Amino acid sequence: MKETAFDVLGIGNALVDVLAHADDAFLTENDIEKGAMTLIDAEAANALYGKIGPAVEVSGGSAANTIAGVATLGGRAAYIGKVADDALGNIFAHDIKATGVHFEATRQAGGDTGHCTILVTPDAQRSMNTFLGASTTLCADDVAEDQVSAAKVIYLEGYLFDPPKAREAFYKAAGIAHEAGREVALTLSDSFCVERYRAEFQHLVETEIDILFANEDELMALYQTTTFDDALQIVREKCSIAALTRSAAGSIIVCGDEIHVIDADKAQVVDTTGAGDLYAAGFLYGYTAGKDLKTAGQIASLCAAEVISHVGARPEADLKALAKAKGLI
Amino acid sequence: MKETAFDVLGIGNALVDVLAHADDAFLTENDIEKGAMTLIDAEAANALYGKIGPAVEVSGGSAANTIAGVATLGGRAAYIGKVADDALGNIFAHDIKATGVHFEATRQAGGDTGHCTILVTPDAQRSMNTFLGASTTLCADDVAEDQVSAAKVIYLEGYLFDPPKAREAFYKAAGIAHEAGREVALTLSDSFCVERYRAEFQHLVETEIDILFANEDELMALYQTTTFDDALQIVREKCSIAALTRSAAGSIIVCGDEIHVIDADKAQVVDTTGAGDLYAAGFLYGYTAGKDLKTAGQIASLCAAEVISHVGARPEADLKALAKAKGLI
Repeated sequence: MKETAFDVLGIGNALVDVLAHADDAFLTENDIEKGAMTLIDAEAANALYGKIGPAVEVSGGSAANTIAGVATLGGRAAYIGKVADDALGNIFAHDIKATGVHFEATRQAGGDTGHCTILVTPDAQRSMNTFLGASTTLCADDVAEDQVSAAKVIYLEGYLFDPPKAREAFYKAAGIAHEAGREVALTLSDSFCVERYRAEFQHLVETEIDILFANEDELMALYQTTTFDDALQIVREKCSIAALTRSAAGSIIVCGDEIHVIDADKAQVVDTTGAGDLYAAGFLYGYTAGKDLKTAGQIASLCAAEVISHVGARPEADLKALAKAKGLI
Repeated sequence: MKETAFDVLGIGNALVDVLAHADDAFLTENDIEKGAMTLIDAEAANALYGKIGPAVEVSGGSAANTIAGVATLGGRAAYIGKVADDALGNIFAHDIKATGVHFEATRQAGGDTGHCTILVTPDAQRSMNTFLGASTTLCADDVAEDQVSAAKVIYLEGYLFDPPKAREAFYKAAGIAHEAGREVALTLSDSFCVERYRAEFQHLVETEIDILFANEDELMALYQTTTFDDALQIVREKCSIAALTRSAAGSIIVCGDEIHVIDADKAQVVDTTGAGDLYAAGFLYGYTAGKDLKTAGQIASLCAAEVISHVGARPEADLKALAKAKGLI
């Protein structure tokens, strides 16, 4: 097999997050589903922006957050996603490259870079309102074969099932990766996304996915079970590795008969945005660095704890130093 | 005297902050004066952006931060400053209005909204690199006489002495305010700014300023003294009220023979950006609400402590609730 240039390559919706605080009453008044990711159009995005309080702009996008985390840990990381030729596109491209991620920005001429208005309630939960913008123009042609085949693992976000062309990009990337003997990882993204595309996700996990990331709600939505354990018993038959997160209850990593129960790292929770994304970053970094599954899970927990201790979905601390201090890398 | 519509009206350079972490070596390599505000042009701003790490975009501008703080405390606040018709201009206008500030954005056609690249070093100090952009087009015509004459206090930032037309706006506003029987407050902004315009500032303080905000370095630069106490004895002869900040050593408020020594509120220091701005917010809110000088100073200390406990120069907590909990309002 050829040498790899990257440990992890992510493909996802390239978004800038617009973070603001809101109370539960605001969510109710504006018909915003708490804890979910809802797609909105440009008009609704502008209307919502007119109602929210002062905000902070910071690069986001689920897979992009993960890839930024891999790079911060010292992994060789690359990202494919689409932004527009505007100020938010500049911010996105700057931030991901500044983290050390390989990103060949193909800019959509005209239009707006996608952005996600994230409302953080006092319980630190986030409700996301995504205007996909330029990210919807991601298509199979944007999947650079040389990059995909040069990554140990490619990492795809379930949200890519929303823009129709992105799904083709998704399958093309998975095909190239497997052809080159690489592995394909997927995060289910959110339970509402799973509800929208359950049959497709079930088929995908069974046929293309080597490493699955999901939280309890997503996994139970995927297999329509009433308990987490029931879903766990199903998923272990479906893909090589499943890394299943349970918020404060930690995570379960299952790989055939091997199973690990990993504690959550303690954190002062400020904003849960990016918890799953950074868990995946830590796991994929550890896995591609040749760590055992338990250690990869512990690095994952450490990264998730860091990102929920501040506002924003990208790491602020030196994750590599934190992991070293704990003897994990 | 006519009824007032506003407690405080601020006039300043309207900027969006681009916040990133950096170490001291980075400052040295890039000839950045630690702790100072340095003016840079568009080219230098772009070059610097290409070198810094991932950043967070958040509305800033010294007087704008203060005015946002006044509004967060429940004061009636207005702001005058100039942005361009671009994405950063939208962010600035949204955030200040969302805080409850009256802001009639007059947008410069073309050009870029000014932004300040703030590098936060591990000691929580900030070094500011300001590209003034559209904020330099603020001129006397932008000073709305009806707004200025309707504010109990107008608040001006020393940074306005950098763009030449803004200085005219500054004097026009002070003239209107005094004509209407209002008070004029000034912050010296930074010691390098004072060095650039020492004679003008000395004249201004003596002739136009009722309430002066300064930190130790700025005050000592203004009067070229070697000790804080020497400068204090001079300033008390020059303007009605001086509110003088001394970082962790708290602040001194002097009004003729009345003098108060106010303790700093304890804070876990994350980023000192905005400390002086929010101190002024707390003081001006208390002062215009009819509180005594000591109480106004205590509100000021509380606001400064809040803003240095997180990244960014605008308050994130409910300052009004915090001040109420301490029995200050």
